[in-house]
Amino acid sequence: MEKTYKVEGMTCGGCAQSVEKAIKGIAPTATVKVDLENKQVTVTGVEDDALVAQAVEGAGFDYEGPVSP
Amino acid sequence: MEKTYKVEGMTCGGCAQSVEKAIKGIAPTATVKVDLENKQVTVTGVEDDALVAQAVEGAGFDYEGPVSP
Repeated sequence: MEKTYKVEGMTCGGCAQSVEKAIKGIAPTATVKVDLENKQVTVTGVEDDALVAQAVEGAGFDYEGPVSP
Repeated sequence: MEKTYKVEGMTCGGCAQSVEKAIKGIAPTATVKVDLENKQVTVTGVEDDALVAQAVEGAGFDYEGPVSP
């Protein structure tokens, strides 16, 4: 299942890579796509939003919650 | 004790914040200063380089080791 989250604080490719690595650190099989312009992260393969939140916050960015489809 | 490390992959303030938060996550009492221009991170209050390496790599950046004084 693919789900998109709002994440504040990412401003460059280094930030994007950091968020991606943090999420994959918690869920190694996940697919992560970062949209810097829209401050969104799309994750496939993680069922629990709390895990995404934990990874994002742990990497130093602000997890704002899922984006309504 | 203050120690400076070379860290690659940090390009903006978001990256700097991410590295700082990761190191403080592992060592809450540490002081962390990021020098983006010189790609260096100065840490006070962490004795074990391996902890800094773990935090930096966990945040998605490349730990290159201590900088010679």
